[in-house]
Amino acid sequence: MDVFKAIKTRRSIREYQEREVEEEKLQRVLEAGRLAPSAKNIQEWRFVVVRDKETKEKLAQAARNQAFVAQAPICIVGCATITDYRMTCGQKAYPIDVAIAVDHMTLVAVEEGLGTCWIGSFFEDQVKEILSIPDEVRVVILLSLGYPSFQPPPKPRLPQEKVISFDRWGW
Amino acid sequence: MDVFKAIKTRRSIREYQEREVEEEKLQRVLEAGRLAPSAKNIQEWRFVVVRDKETKEKLAQAARNQAFVAQAPICIVGCATITDYRMTCGQKAYPIDVAIAVDHMTLVAVEEGLGTCWIGSFFEDQVKEILSIPDEVRVVILLSLGYPSFQPPPKPRLPQEKVISFDRWGW
Repeated sequence: MDVFKAIKTRRSIREYQEREVEEEKLQRVLEAGRLAPSAKNIQEWRFVVVRDKETKEKLAQAARNQAFVAQAPICIVGCATITDYRMTCGQKAYPIDVAIAVDHMTLVAVEEGLGTCWIGSFFEDQVKEILSIPDEVRVVILLSLGYPSFQPPPKPRLPQEKVISFDRWGW
Repeated sequence: MDVFKAIKTRRSIREYQEREVEEEKLQRVLEAGRLAPSAKNIQEWRFVVVRDKETKEKLAQAARNQAFVAQAPICIVGCATITDYRMTCGQKAYPIDVAIAVDHMTLVAVEEGLGTCWIGSFFEDQVKEILSIPDEVRVVILLSLGYPSFQPPPKPRLPQEKVISFDRWGW
């Protein structure tokens, strides 16, 4: 599938079929993350791929009882091991690097006929306890993954002139 | 181009042809950003597309004299207007949201035969002054864009077992 089409087709999927995700499809999604660029190529991202039913149920609870987190066949937990590196611009690298890798995953998922949802609404300490994640590691995002039950309509977006200006700040 | 192929083909491009980027190609790159998801769909990203030669030269200086920033026909400056929104997990939404939108741009750029480079090495206050960006706005990342002079070899990546574990933290 064309990249642009994948971007246009992607939705936040919060209802999944029971159907399992084939091993080779999961592999391609994970590989898309592994190939992602990171600041100075530090590759500080780590991904815990949760398929165990009981563990997913605990994650769903930690994610403010969002039931679809357990209903999806897979939950990918995006973590970062090096969290003190700041770029010259002042931003910490790790949230950006994890986001790039997870974004790669979301788009390959669309290509494979799968759906995902970015989940930032979770209690980090609870997720760490459930998965035995060390204190110094940050959990940045959860990503549900599976076959969508249906294709939701697109969310509205601001028009280009509200978000893009040329040669100087335009607003 | 397939999404997976675009991800495998993407490189950080630091040398560009003089050739201009066609308007319709730039449009698709920008549209890929505009269509990106964001936390609660707040769409706090704003993009300043710099093509003016003199302005690009100033940006290159602000980016620690990285000459390719001026040499590339376009520099996209990724900003965020709402910077105080934190998700339940504790992360600020804006660096992640800007990264997702810019990542979309990088992959559509590959599809269009273009190259990009993520640039975090810049002095934010200088970039703000150059582009008249208000104090309360954050500049998260610069992205150079143009036709690559050549395709660099891939950077090494950690093997999957070093970055992916199953059902619990694996290291």
